Amino acid sequence: MHSKKALNPRTKKEGSLKSPTTIAFLGPEGTFTELAALEHFGRGGDLKPYASIDDVFAAVAQKHVKHGVVPVENSTEGAVNNTQDCLIDSLVRIVGEVILPVEHHLLVGKDNRTKPLTKIASHKQSLAQCRKWILKNHPNAQLLECASNAEAAQLAASDDSIGAIAGKRAADRYGLISINQKIQDQRHNSTRFLVISDKDARPAVNNKTSLLIYAENKPGSLYRILEPFENLQISLTKIETRPSKIEAWAYVFFIDFEGHITDKLVEKVFIQLRKCSAEIKILGSYPVFKTEQRNF
Amino acid sequence: MHSKKALNPRTKKEGSLKSPTTIAFLGPEGTFTELAALEHFGRGGDLKPYASIDDVFAAVAQKHVKHGVVPVENSTEGAVNNTQDCLIDSLVRIVGEVILPVEHHLLVGKDNRTKPLTKIASHKQSLAQCRKWILKNHPNAQLLECASNAEAAQLAASDDSIGAIAGKRAADRYGLISINQKIQDQRHNSTRFLVISDKDARPAVNNKTSLLIYAENKPGSLYRILEPFENLQISLTKIETRPSKIEAWAYVFFIDFEGHITDKLVEKVFIQLRKCSAEIKILGSYPVFKTEQRNF
Repeated sequence: MHSKKALNPRTKKEGSLKSPTTIAFLGPEGTFTELAALEHFGRGGDLKPYASIDDVFAAVAQKHVKHGVVPVENSTEGAVNNTQDCLIDSLVRIVGEVILPVEHHLLVGKDNRTKPLTKIASHKQSLAQCRKWILKNHPNAQLLECASNAEAAQLAASDDSIGAIAGKRAADRYGLISINQKIQDQRHNSTRFLVISDKDARPAVNNKTSLLIYAENKPGSLYRILEPFENLQISLTKIETRPSKIEAWAYVFFIDFEGHITDKLVEKVFIQLRKCSAEIKILGSYPVFKTEQRNF
Repeated sequence: MHSKKALNPRTKKEGSLKSPTTIAFLGPEGTFTELAALEHFGRGGDLKPYASIDDVFAAVAQKHVKHGVVPVENSTEGAVNNTQDCLIDSLVRIVGEVILPVEHHLLVGKDNRTKPLTKIASHKQSLAQCRKWILKNHPNAQLLECASNAEAAQLAASDDSIGAIAGKRAADRYGLISINQKIQDQRHNSTRFLVISDKDARPAVNNKTSLLIYAENKPGSLYRILEPFENLQISLTKIETRPSKIEAWAYVFFIDFEGHITDKLVEKVFIQLRKCSAEIKILGSYPVFKTEQRNF
């Protein structure tokens, strides 16, 4: 049982993979989500890749890990629906956010500079972020949707007919070369990641709160949800709709706003909100990442 | 030049494929979009399949066809981002909507009942609508993202290792058999389609209007957009956000509401709206499809 792992002092201190200090991220290694986890937890974090967003949520909910890191929104392609649906279904809390610039490259095997590519593999969000570039440069390529960009890089490493859309990190990790650089359709392409846990975060200096609201099915219900925020002059930083999945054409609203659930002002918002909407689920209050987001 | 086509009285009357009466739909044949086009135009329509949503929009904008039909929203999986982005970029108008129930089946080649499937092909929206079923029943299958479910059916017909997720119509069209029925995660799964044209629709008895609003980047801007609708007691039937793609983390709002742009009440809304938002683009006023949608 004297494995390499047991000899590593950090691993010893924080325990094995079952330790509650392990951090689950949407893997495999080499994804932007791993970079986001490193940004949040630093090099000292005990990172473990998981195969899907659902698996990261399950690992946190079942306390196999203390934290999880998943992508939630891209500045070009919008919400990551899978993460939103897990937030609807799960009881985990959002305890942090990370925003990273995302640049995509077309990666191929090292001996593949001259062969024609017939397939392009990537996560569906990355395929979407490069949609116009693909249509223009590889209009006949078959698109392979992968669980992650790193999985796409693995495919490209094993099959010469496949190119992978992924970041520079994946090229290094899987021994590929980049034949086209910065191919995302929008130059300013960033992704927002969430850090999740089964416990609430402690208040920081600047906080943000994320809510899920099931609005009533009657005229003006969204207006009445926004009214308390306007009355108390609290800025929204995001509003999104998703199908509620309870019945056809019913929606839930994802709302982010400035403030912490323990703030007096935010408590007042909740008192007013409870009068006007069917159901509220608090997803978490957490420190604002150091970047400029929008207000509306 | 005396082709079969020239002998067909309907084709003669309505002209060749370049005729402005042709209807472009997201093909190939056998898609739910073709069904939606048949629902709207009846058997008399001169339907022509196009390879992508972008191509349908381009064919309408360039007047190669008079109408186009594309999917815009699913009751389980939400908005079809590609269509929303085309609505942002294009000057075409929405002139109608169709809502169809969508049931998915797993289709394989006729001699393939006992072979293990290693790949599952479909449009990314359909893969998402069956996400839980796939995870449970084919957790290791590679997902192939296709331009349409019908293209996936064609793949399955040519490769025994591929199963296609598509509707019954695609099974009939491509000679496949259905080995699992109604595999969509939500029983009540419907898709909403838009009919587009380069001219406005004439007012009907019950109308709906679709707008794009670029909100100002300041607190309360969304609230002030909704205020005129509340003041004039006009029901919203939909609100969605999409990245504006002009700058990172700026959003546009897609808003649908009851009424026609030529209604006196709606004119009043526009007068109030112009005072509070950066830019409004009218996507069209068109007859409401005969189904119950939500208000908020």
